Amino acid sequence: MEGVDHLTHERSKAQFDVEEMKIVWAGSRHAFEVTDRISRLVASDPAFRKDNRTILPRKELFKNTLRKAAHAWKRIIELRLTVTNLLMCVKKLQAGRLGSDELSRRRGLDGSGCSFSSSLDLPLFLERFTGFSDVIEEEATKLRFFVDEINFTELHWVMFVPAIKGQGTDEQQRKWLPLAYKMEIIGCYAQTELGHGSNVQGLETTATFDPQTDEFVINSPTLTSSKWWPGGLGKVSTHGIVFARLITDGRDYGIHGFIVQLRSLDDHLPLPGITVGDIGNKFGSGAYNTMDNGLLRFDNVRIPRDQMLMRFSQVTREGKYVRSSVPRQLVYGTMVYVRQTIVADASCALARAVCIATRYSAVRRQFGSQNGGVETQVIDYKTQQNRLFPLLASAYAFRFVGEWLKLLYTDVSERLQAKDFSTLPEAHACTAGLKSLTTSATADGIEECRKLCGGHGYLSCSGLPELFAVYIPTCTYEGDNVVLLLQVARFLMKTVSQLPSGEKPVGTTAYLGRVEDLMQCRSTSQKAEDWINPSVVLEVFEARAARLSIACAQNLSKFANRDEGFSELAADLVEAAVAHCQLIVISKFIEKLRQDIPGKGVKEQLQILCYVYALNLLHKHLGDFVSTGCITPEQASLANDQLRSLYSQVRPSAVALVDAFNFTDHFLGSILGRYDGNVYPKLYEEAWKDPLNESIVPDGYHEYIRPLLKQQLRNARF
Amino acid sequence: MEGVDHLTHERSKAQFDVEEMKIVWAGSRHAFEVTDRISRLVASDPAFRKDNRTILPRKELFKNTLRKAAHAWKRIIELRLTVTNLLMCVKKLQAGRLGSDELSRRRGLDGSGCSFSSSLDLPLFLERFTGFSDVIEEEATKLRFFVDEINFTELHWVMFVPAIKGQGTDEQQRKWLPLAYKMEIIGCYAQTELGHGSNVQGLETTATFDPQTDEFVINSPTLTSSKWWPGGLGKVSTHGIVFARLITDGRDYGIHGFIVQLRSLDDHLPLPGITVGDIGNKFGSGAYNTMDNGLLRFDNVRIPRDQMLMRFSQVTREGKYVRSSVPRQLVYGTMVYVRQTIVADASCALARAVCIATRYSAVRRQFGSQNGGVETQVIDYKTQQNRLFPLLASAYAFRFVGEWLKLLYTDVSERLQAKDFSTLPEAHACTAGLKSLTTSATADGIEECRKLCGGHGYLSCSGLPELFAVYIPTCTYEGDNVVLLLQVARFLMKTVSQLPSGEKPVGTTAYLGRVEDLMQCRSTSQKAEDWINPSVVLEVFEARAARLSIACAQNLSKFANRDEGFSELAADLVEAAVAHCQLIVISKFIEKLRQDIPGKGVKEQLQILCYVYALNLLHKHLGDFVSTGCITPEQASLANDQLRSLYSQVRPSAVALVDAFNFTDHFLGSILGRYDGNVYPKLYEEAWKDPLNESIVPDGYHEYIRPLLKQQLRNARF
Repeated sequence: MEGVDHLTHERSKAQFDVEEMKIVWAGSRHAFEVTDRISRLVASDPAFRKDNRTILPRKELFKNTLRKAAHAWKRIIELRLTVTNLLMCVKKLQAGRLGSDELSRRRGLDGSGCSFSSSLDLPLFLERFTGFSDVIEEEATKLRFFVDEINFTELHWVMFVPAIKGQGTDEQQRKWLPLAYKMEIIGCYAQTELGHGSNVQGLETTATFDPQTDEFVINSPTLTSSKWWPGGLGKVSTHGIVFARLITDGRDYGIHGFIVQLRSLDDHLPLPGITVGDIGNKFGSGAYNTMDNGLLRFDNVRIPRDQMLMRFSQVTREGKYVRSSVPRQLVYGTMVYVRQTIVADASCALARAVCIATRYSAVRRQFGSQNGGVETQVIDYKTQQNRLFPLLASAYAFRFVGEWLKLLYTDVSERLQAKDFSTLPEAHACTAGLKSLTTSATADGIEECRKLCGGHGYLSCSGLPELFAVYIPTCTYEGDNVVLLLQVARFLMKTVSQLPSGEKPVGTTAYLGRVEDLMQCRSTSQKAEDWINPSVVLEVFEARAARLSIACAQNLSKFANRDEGFSELAADLVEAAVAHCQLIVISKFIEKLRQDIPGKGVKEQLQILCYVYALNLLHKHLGDFVSTGCITPEQASLANDQLRSLYSQVRPSAVALVDAFNFTDHFLGSILGRYDGNVYPKLYEEAWKDPLNESIVPDGYHEYIRPLLKQQLRNARF
Repeated sequence: MEGVDHLTHERSKAQFDVEEMKIVWAGSRHAFEVTDRISRLVASDPAFRKDNRTILPRKELFKNTLRKAAHAWKRIIELRLTVTNLLMCVKKLQAGRLGSDELSRRRGLDGSGCSFSSSLDLPLFLERFTGFSDVIEEEATKLRFFVDEINFTELHWVMFVPAIKGQGTDEQQRKWLPLAYKMEIIGCYAQTELGHGSNVQGLETTATFDPQTDEFVINSPTLTSSKWWPGGLGKVSTHGIVFARLITDGRDYGIHGFIVQLRSLDDHLPLPGITVGDIGNKFGSGAYNTMDNGLLRFDNVRIPRDQMLMRFSQVTREGKYVRSSVPRQLVYGTMVYVRQTIVADASCALARAVCIATRYSAVRRQFGSQNGGVETQVIDYKTQQNRLFPLLASAYAFRFVGEWLKLLYTDVSERLQAKDFSTLPEAHACTAGLKSLTTSATADGIEECRKLCGGHGYLSCSGLPELFAVYIPTCTYEGDNVVLLLQVARFLMKTVSQLPSGEKPVGTTAYLGRVEDLMQCRSTSQKAEDWINPSVVLEVFEARAARLSIACAQNLSKFANRDEGFSELAADLVEAAVAHCQLIVISKFIEKLRQDIPGKGVKEQLQILCYVYALNLLHKHLGDFVSTGCITPEQASLANDQLRSLYSQVRPSAVALVDAFNFTDHFLGSILGRYDGNVYPKLYEEAWKDPLNESIVPDGYHEYIRPLLKQQLRNARF
């Protein structure tokens, strides 16, 4: 009954070339190689152990995280994975002491695409940094990713540095970025407040300009204005980008960002006027408690005027507020970037959970035997397949839509450079919507995978409780998922309202240009197999999305006050937005399948998954499809028959399909999901490590259990 | 901006008499009074504090739980809440030293319905115990419930004691029950194994009869046969009901229960041949980690023959296996009882989450203001109402169906006494299905409430993470929810298959007797208001449930092998079972509304909630309704309009509707859900209690942060 046999057998049944699928999953051979190398490097380093995480008390847990973060940075430097190294090279280049070959060598790249000359100066370099650093930072980012322990460095790299790059002037970047890149300062992003989250315009912190001293005076006027949640703020950050209402010249100019030093670089004590601390324990054990989400209050904290981030607007020496000529739309570029990475991460988090549940479902056996024979593998039950395989398909679907979003971001960036803002609203709506769709589905999917593992999924060592706990904030941060869907809906309503004027919808809304056809569309599917036809599937999802949008628009038009209508119909609008986003995911999956994909059986497996994804959604949202008339109940029933048959096609390849994610056992962090399937002996071994098992008779026996058993409680004192 | 004002204002808007609603929620004035008294008693006792639970490391947490359990038992004795007290009375009665008035007084009851005479002996008393103890134990059970910290006593009272009562002979009951009632022994229920959960027949532990010594020899023949999960086993229980394959006379007679002593009553050490320990950390912080779920292995452990639970079958001195004449169906009575309590608990757990989310949604404000004015309460957003109010309605719906299940249990018990087993299959299917439906909805609903609280819901002090973590095992234990739905489906298919023979379906399946009408049924609703008509609603839910069952039966008939068909169509069968169970909930809610319900506006509010529950389900499962043809898309759209209007009617009473649950702040355990709404100051206060805030500069600064900032990592060792 040792699981190891089951998985070997499972792997032999795969209907496709797993090694080629790994490359498809990674995105490219290069990406696969980097990922593979870095993940193994982390997994093999005992300093990055994480199996004790859920039993450490908060202080020890946090100290351990600090240790790992420092160790990771040390490894990044040693391995020359980082831009710090590149900066040194650039300095040497400036000093003429290094040829560009040497630079390429140090970067560990082949030098192609490098066109630096020794005359390149640091400021110019920094200006060009965005595109260039992506290549260099890839490995450092991956290392942090595979360490798989959320901490202050995340906020430093993902929020603090980009905020300075995106919102700071050239001069500010020259001053602050080198400090930040070398981590001579550690920064956080202090936006949300105790009483204010999604509505940034509601923030209460004030930054009042004092022309006498050429300083801003920062204050927390109310309790609800206390900064609350910023990661890295609680115990570590030396600096923060603080968002506050800018008040100058007797007027409130709304929310702006300021670079504020929070702690002394000498002894780490908070600077005068600053109250800072951790906001306390969060969901789960381990999980996000490795992060020092913080609270922060200001009592007349003064900063120099030039620490306001002034790329988009300035306050002059005299206290005049001046808008710069830099288009504010550039900020949306960053938003598209960040949300694009969230979608990529969603596919990865869901893949982890699915990998655990799939392998364990192949190991676990239950029922189905007569007379004490071998029981049935739970993965063979249709009820299990019906819940698991759509999630497996979703992981792949989100992977490909994430890949496409990366291209979209590149396109948007290039257009922004060229001051072409025409595609921005569509790109913004589409990334907002996909962020919402994929993260909600992933959060729910992780919990579903836990349930699919039965009782043992509830054990911390299954990895699933912590994966869930650490993942779910993604549904809230960088835009609450419901708020984002309402933004998508608003964009859809605008698009629909412009249709009569002949304006052609672009990109992911192009199908709305064919709305008249779609409103008439009746699916032509006549037998189950018709449902594995891309145009049949695409058509009904387009028709459904279009009809839900049109229905909302028509209902909205009944309201005299459009805002009131929008508010009253919000739930319907959210559903229309979801339909639109699901269509995007399906259409990008289908586009992917139109590409040349090498490897025996690889494309065929992906086709199966694509239809599993689509037909499961069709079943789940049957009401939309049937009631808008694009399919009949009989066609829906055929689609369901086809879906069941697809499950049977996924079944033999299921374990290989999760192997293709190429996760190390370290990263996976789950006894149930072990590559070798040797689940039961390892569960047994793990149990004994619990602190409760340190003594045979538990602490408290003499005080509380013995008096109970001996009926001597009456006089006991507690 | 202090929340306290918001909630006072909210309460003033209530459209009904809250005090009367409290009694409806509690079930009766008596139940309300007991609940109210006991919950306040617990809340006011500092020994029952629980606000530090999520930050205690496992060992301290567990020790603290032992302390509370002992304290609770002490209080139960002091307050004479328990049967132990009664047992003493009975002994005195026997000795003629106590009148029956005194007995009644000690029981704190009015003595009516008491017909004990001083001639009553203990054995006879114990035989009659089942019904009688329910009244007495009510308060003790409630006290444990309000202490709200899951621990070994739960298993002792809910599994160990009932197993002896249900499966032990009179003699066994006389021997073991007095010990158990006084907690001179502490018991657990050792059924599931590392490799075996739902399929009890697959258990591997063996109990082999040795006629030479008149003993059973218990063994764990494989690793997967290790007992795994039993609560209270890991560190506390002195005894366990162990389920093992009974082997005697050279034959395997399948799974039977045995009373096995596990630990010494002198020093608490495991007895020879027994390996026992805790299975390790589980989901969340605090939560179920207060319970010592255990593992257990046997190496030739010998117990006397008379420790096999022999009510239903015996092994004779010679080793012959003999079935007794006691009908085995009696076991189902216990199952109905336990699942009935799970449904009642589900309504309470969901009510807690809804109470927190509702109050906080009234306190929290976001968006909707121009120029820095007061923002909109989030409870006023339709997207919030659309997610929250159906959960509020579900809490009430589950409450009433739980109340009805209690009556069903009484009816089943009486019939069992009279050896009438005719209603048992239907009662069993219905409790199984409702257990599944209500616990799944509650687990999902708690997480949804957490999301409805935005970022702050993720803080442990919101109470929601722990509520979720501690609740979700309910979906797995006492029958995995999917397995249970398949049982319901099997029962439905059997019922349908018997229709042609003219057999009249009974109880909750009675509607299937009208299947021909239901298959033709087209809803007559023509306007939105038609959807607040009980017969209109009931009819479409009956039609949907009947049609899904019939469709499954028709598809099943296409399979030559019925088991194969059942397996292939499992997902559809689960959906049919869900439809059936939702119908039960709705019909019991409607039945409740036909009763006389006093109090201004109380019945009206409940009517609103009933339709919110039903119409939300109609919208969620729209595909079922529209594709089976019982309603048209236009009728569905009208139902949705009506649902929105119902939300507006719930809105003013929302806070009062959760006040009616009558939860103390102690029990609620949530800063976001505080009765006074004073959320922000208390959140701020709470944050400072985190261990990380014990020092301003965190542990690890000197080792890990400072070297990073000072660029001195290169030579550091980790």
